[in-house]
Amino acid sequence: MIEFCLKSLNSRSRFAPIANHRCHREKGHDGKCLEYPYLKDLQKRYKKIADKIKRDSTNTTGASWASDDAGPNRILRWAMLLSDEELLNYELDMSKLRPGIVAKLREKAATYEDCMQVAMKLTWLVYQMPDSPTPPDDIERYLEKVFKEMTPSSTKCEVCLLPISFNLFSTAQRGKAAIETCHKNPRVHNADNVGFAHRECNIAQGAKTLDEFYAWIEGILNRARRL
Amino acid sequence: MIEFCLKSLNSRSRFAPIANHRCHREKGHDGKCLEYPYLKDLQKRYKKIADKIKRDSTNTTGASWASDDAGPNRILRWAMLLSDEELLNYELDMSKLRPGIVAKLREKAATYEDCMQVAMKLTWLVYQMPDSPTPPDDIERYLEKVFKEMTPSSTKCEVCLLPISFNLFSTAQRGKAAIETCHKNPRVHNADNVGFAHRECNIAQGAKTLDEFYAWIEGILNRARRL
Repeated sequence: MIEFCLKSLNSRSRFAPIANHRCHREKGHDGKCLEYPYLKDLQKRYKKIADKIKRDSTNTTGASWASDDAGPNRILRWAMLLSDEELLNYELDMSKLRPGIVAKLREKAATYEDCMQVAMKLTWLVYQMPDSPTPPDDIERYLEKVFKEMTPSSTKCEVCLLPISFNLFSTAQRGKAAIETCHKNPRVHNADNVGFAHRECNIAQGAKTLDEFYAWIEGILNRARRL
Repeated sequence: MIEFCLKSLNSRSRFAPIANHRCHREKGHDGKCLEYPYLKDLQKRYKKIADKIKRDSTNTTGASWASDDAGPNRILRWAMLLSDEELLNYELDMSKLRPGIVAKLREKAATYEDCMQVAMKLTWLVYQMPDSPTPPDDIERYLEKVFKEMTPSSTKCEVCLLPISFNLFSTAQRGKAAIETCHKNPRVHNADNVGFAHRECNIAQGAKTLDEFYAWIEGILNRARRL
């Protein structure tokens, strides 16, 4: 366990009052407050990956329904905790979106603190990928305090359960990253429920929970074997 | 087996010279020539489904890569048999598309006659779906001559192997039809290789052949069981 500093931070985000951004360095730290202290190393050496972790932790996903009437492509997850009425004050008119889109957005709602925990979890997982860089000692200690000891090369795709290599972050097909953030239950965004998956695995899982997905493919295989 | 009339038909398509559109009524028929005689009934009672059969039979798919630089969203499959040079005469500059898009388009190439056979196969399958309308006698005879005898309610999703109901054609989620045309091998477009699949099944199969997909999910299940 770790105790965070939790001093309030300034943010220029229009949704900052909902989030109440806070310092996540350890309580009693020296120097300045930071929201993502554990991302410092990736930010310097692999900026794209650090940015992806921040984005996937805090923003709704939107690629699959991006279209003219699909509304904001990615939005801060804690904004989706606000009522339709409150969102009007942020120039977001949910009534103008198709009902399916609204449901999709609403089920991505998560508190600021859950999103922060997700970012830590993803960072912890990245450093345990095969081929991953070694974390600086202070970051390793920090993440091991939040979760548990790291085991090098132990991070697996949550769906297919094969190792998921850090190098895959840099490969992309048709502009789509080969590694995606995945949810064991697509409707829950917290540290327990997130991990990484190959893009094709994440797509195959779709809107199912992992348990539902495994039961589904088991049924398929049983029928295919009978042919 | 059936012998087609095969008289040349007029077409306003700019790619008509490549296709060489032909009559597919039975040889020696009375009355006027028709390209899709077996679609007459669906065209009248379920126009959207008839249109979908024509479109999926003859056009490349494009939804997943539709974007500004993705080029034409759907294009006639036989146009993709032309060289890059020849396509310039049709105002299609393949060199302006990303290489991944070009590969994706090129692997959808199919001859006009293969596309015609696909349309017949899909129609034959539609009439064997649970809840499907009964085909008029002449169309039933025609399709049974081309393929084999129809078995009511026998059409299954090619991927999950569960029955696929005709009524599903009219349900759609977020603007996406619940039934898609699917390919046992995604890189082959002919009558043997096509069928229908639930949208989620088709998405899960992705770029894999059905054999590859079954082997893949078997591996996943084996690993999941060990947990």
